[in-house]
Amino acid sequence: MKRVKLTVAYDGTNYCGWQVQPNGITVQEVLNQCLSEFTGENIETIGASRTDAGVHALGNVAVFDTEMRMPGDKFSFALNQRLPEDIRIQKSEEVDADFHPRYVKSQKTYEYRILNCRFPIPTERFYSHFTYIPLDVDKMKEAASYLIGEHDFKSFCGTGAQVKTTVRTVKEIQIEKSGDRITIRITGEGFLYNMVRIIAGTLMDIGGGLYPPEKMKEILEAKDRKKAGPTAPARGLTLMKIQYF
Amino acid sequence: MKRVKLTVAYDGTNYCGWQVQPNGITVQEVLNQCLSEFTGENIETIGASRTDAGVHALGNVAVFDTEMRMPGDKFSFALNQRLPEDIRIQKSEEVDADFHPRYVKSQKTYEYRILNCRFPIPTERFYSHFTYIPLDVDKMKEAASYLIGEHDFKSFCGTGAQVKTTVRTVKEIQIEKSGDRITIRITGEGFLYNMVRIIAGTLMDIGGGLYPPEKMKEILEAKDRKKAGPTAPARGLTLMKIQYF
Repeated sequence: MKRVKLTVAYDGTNYCGWQVQPNGITVQEVLNQCLSEFTGENIETIGASRTDAGVHALGNVAVFDTEMRMPGDKFSFALNQRLPEDIRIQKSEEVDADFHPRYVKSQKTYEYRILNCRFPIPTERFYSHFTYIPLDVDKMKEAASYLIGEHDFKSFCGTGAQVKTTVRTVKEIQIEKSGDRITIRITGEGFLYNMVRIIAGTLMDIGGGLYPPEKMKEILEAKDRKKAGPTAPARGLTLMKIQYF
Repeated sequence: MKRVKLTVAYDGTNYCGWQVQPNGITVQEVLNQCLSEFTGENIETIGASRTDAGVHALGNVAVFDTEMRMPGDKFSFALNQRLPEDIRIQKSEEVDADFHPRYVKSQKTYEYRILNCRFPIPTERFYSHFTYIPLDVDKMKEAASYLIGEHDFKSFCGTGAQVKTTVRTVKEIQIEKSGDRITIRITGEGFLYNMVRIIAGTLMDIGGGLYPPEKMKEILEAKDRKKAGPTAPARGLTLMKIQYF
């Protein structure tokens, strides 16, 4: 028996998110089926991040246990032959039998992409959020600076989430503008439900001039979801990578 | 009566190219229908570039004549309300009644995008060509330099094309690598059928080490389609812009 770690990229457009659920097809379900057929075993993967419906990933992580003698690094090739083209294993490797992708300390990086011009660009419609309201990136950067470090991010936690604590650490937020494209890149040790999308929605409110940048501090301190901006649409979000320590 | 020029962006994935044809739905057909419904007239647009099935555009150009009194710049808003989300008018403006998008002197810029890594990235599958063969960008740049200027591009002309002359002028070819992404950007005053895709296919052959860069000169001088590389897949190609003089 060995444990194999997969680095999984997917286009989330046609999936009801990562985690197996009764109402629709999920990335994890397709991966479990594919692995079960390939190995002849009943495989249930354990995922690192339960991304929402419509959210994309370049580097989500999943592990599974198998009796197969195939070397860990060969699973990527075998699975990519069988998976639909909106899911691709980027890497496979054998890990310690007790490695758990959610309980081992890690750092996640997300990107939220915004297309900011007069009209949408069709080829980017599934992978960025479009807004014609001109966004001031300098204001967004100033607002983002209040979020760096360890804080109670309760104002940025989606309702319905069950967590012991809403304290999290945001290590870095980079905001870059290139032509009509704005990318918000957030790295942290763990995120609350919808946290990146609520931060993105609030930064867009501030970039659009609805509030001054200092308002972000007030929103953070309020510890009240209703004070923050809207949850930005899923299509703009991509889980870029997960680093384990 | 006035003539309106449209700058048209589209995701070519689900279309049989630009030009109206009996075998499948095209961008021009959708645009003609949309314009005819909106104006109540029988509109037939004239397009600048008849892009192939699966090719994308950020800035193709089309014109049409209408009796409508609406100012030229308002058509973009009205049409974008009615078009499917894989077609978006980026700009509309009134032009001289004799402006013809193919007969007025112009310069076109195309981008051919390549994803060059071990495994495909699902979110890029419709908008770039994937190859795992490592490409040497310096060799591609050297090879591309032989194509700059006025030449007989017969070796890079798709079979079945009916043209008076295969002499064309390539003004610029830029090849950039950013991470795993390689972009070939070509600007010229006119292109032969499949010319950009055959150039891209030949540059990939050279970048992958099949021929040395100097071979490009030999291919050009042979004036023989069979000497050049394969026609690179449509999904990697985007018509970026058309500039009129």
